[in-house]
Amino acid sequence: MGLRIKNIYAKLEQENIEGLIVSLPSNVSYLTESLSRDSYLLVSKKENIYFTDSRYAEEAKKTLKGVAILKKTNGSVFKLIADACLNLGLKRIGFEERYLPFAEYKKIKKGLNKKTHLVPTHSFIEELREIKDADEIEKIKRAIRITGAALKFIKRFILPGKKEIEIVAELERFIRYHGAGNSAFDIIVASGPNSSYPHHMPSERRIKSNEPVLIDIGVDYLGYKSDLTRVFFLGKIDVQIQKNYDIVLAAQERAIKKIKPAQIIAEIDRAARQYITRKGYGGFFGHNLGHGIGLDIHEDPHISAKENSIARPGMVFTIEPAIYLPDKFGIRIEDMVLVTERGCEVLSGAINK
Amino acid sequence: MGLRIKNIYAKLEQENIEGLIVSLPSNVSYLTESLSRDSYLLVSKKENIYFTDSRYAEEAKKTLKGVAILKKTNGSVFKLIADACLNLGLKRIGFEERYLPFAEYKKIKKGLNKKTHLVPTHSFIEELREIKDADEIEKIKRAIRITGAALKFIKRFILPGKKEIEIVAELERFIRYHGAGNSAFDIIVASGPNSSYPHHMPSERRIKSNEPVLIDIGVDYLGYKSDLTRVFFLGKIDVQIQKNYDIVLAAQERAIKKIKPAQIIAEIDRAARQYITRKGYGGFFGHNLGHGIGLDIHEDPHISAKENSIARPGMVFTIEPAIYLPDKFGIRIEDMVLVTERGCEVLSGAINK
Repeated sequence: MGLRIKNIYAKLEQENIEGLIVSLPSNVSYLTESLSRDSYLLVSKKENIYFTDSRYAEEAKKTLKGVAILKKTNGSVFKLIADACLNLGLKRIGFEERYLPFAEYKKIKKGLNKKTHLVPTHSFIEELREIKDADEIEKIKRAIRITGAALKFIKRFILPGKKEIEIVAELERFIRYHGAGNSAFDIIVASGPNSSYPHHMPSERRIKSNEPVLIDIGVDYLGYKSDLTRVFFLGKIDVQIQKNYDIVLAAQERAIKKIKPAQIIAEIDRAARQYITRKGYGGFFGHNLGHGIGLDIHEDPHISAKENSIARPGMVFTIEPAIYLPDKFGIRIEDMVLVTERGCEVLSGAINK
Repeated sequence: MGLRIKNIYAKLEQENIEGLIVSLPSNVSYLTESLSRDSYLLVSKKENIYFTDSRYAEEAKKTLKGVAILKKTNGSVFKLIADACLNLGLKRIGFEERYLPFAEYKKIKKGLNKKTHLVPTHSFIEELREIKDADEIEKIKRAIRITGAALKFIKRFILPGKKEIEIVAELERFIRYHGAGNSAFDIIVASGPNSSYPHHMPSERRIKSNEPVLIDIGVDYLGYKSDLTRVFFLGKIDVQIQKNYDIVLAAQERAIKKIKPAQIIAEIDRAARQYITRKGYGGFFGHNLGHGIGLDIHEDPHISAKENSIARPGMVFTIEPAIYLPDKFGIRIEDMVLVTERGCEVLSGAINK
């Protein structure tokens, strides 16, 4: 049986539940230590059962460890899950309330009897996932190395006349030739005024001279993600753009200096946000400072002004302060850090800003 | 106000609800006739309100029509949705039970009072989306044309020694240079025995001589998707593979011949499935014959043996019979059809099999 599944048995007891229906794909992947899609996992001390359909059943048999596989034969996977709970005699069964749609909850509930209860859980597995082990950190580092190589490669390609979408095309191609399975999200290439939209969709717009090009890219390496943002400049840099760039970079440095074990996470966000506010741009930095990253591109902890939990060794998250001046331009600088025993390591530190 | 939003007012009355909370991204996109991400839409006769956050607010202001925009300022979008329902005096408010997670349902409910009720709805907007209008069909056709060009282009590139993931890289690059914003899903390139896994993840495996290479590719053109599968052969075709290919192709032809308005959809699935079963391979075709396609890669109707609704003009769906012999090889042939007044048009008919 997988070690990770074993680890949650204690947590089940603590929460006073006998089993857990896992539906978030990355949680299923984490527990089974394999890449999982369109599947559900029922974890209990008595038995662990994996539910999938004919598209994945053959592959799953080879890669999953420590779980019995039950092929979903006719679409009624929720009936099968309920039946399994009844057969195992589970009375209190947890489910992931943030990810299970209302209709699926109803279907599973319908298949149970009056003596069995569905109990909403929140961050049950996500909490464990916040602390990365050595193997996970190694995969994240590989993802970052590929991303860094892609950013270095693309510098030569960013020229006036190129379309944003063409730059995406070259980046996507490059990462696959260098070991990534896929991009971690839709790569953002935002030129000139488009950079003022934090999640701009790359378009047919052609890059012009003397404008910034913001690139936000991440890759997937064996399920683990990277996420970095750099702003490139073509030709002469406008004074205002340079000024904002320097503010964002200094804000990032201030935040990174704050990172160490037991630091309240809100303080990390505050270090960057206060600096940007003091410089007069507080109203132009609307999102959180960063986010945890691992099997999901966004996972716990959120690096926000309201996060009162503390940083712990093994956490990996992004630090991405920004200033967006609507319809003018935007600057975001994003790096990934690992919290260490003494402070933090900027995992993407070797990648030029 | 957008025509599509207007169209659902009658349906709201019919279902005896005064408003609908739309959470499925493609449903929000459909109603607002724009590409929508990370947003919620509250539709009611009194007012239509769009909820999003700072990352998308500026873009949304420019592209949305017929809706007021309410920027989500601090993450508590569910409180804002509930407040909006109360302010508009709505008493019975529908929500999409298949897509709203249990926790979000609870949060919205908590913000309402005892006189307001949340009513689960199912396929409220998806039903309207089953019938495509001329503009949607045009976009789907563009997506198919780009896909066809990509398949034609890649033929030259599929050679012994190439890795599966390299073929994905070239396809992804090609479609962006030819007008697609992205692929519609993770492109599948499955060589040799890998083709026996219906949703194989492209790997570092190098293609060998005399084996089949299955490619399942779709693109996104302004939000609308394509989805086609072809099997290419390198060198000499094995007799067994050729035989299975011919069976799958004949099964597809039989299904396509059945398609016309008022045809029960299960009969279309049956036409292909019975043929494959008669040839002795019924146990090796585990999935549905096809699926509706549009803003989502999989949408209603499902072309399954259990679908007792009828085909109607304007529906667009895939027809993709298959035979998978575990660890040996798999054959799937997938085309897209449009139901017409007289029968059907194979939208991808011009693309060589």
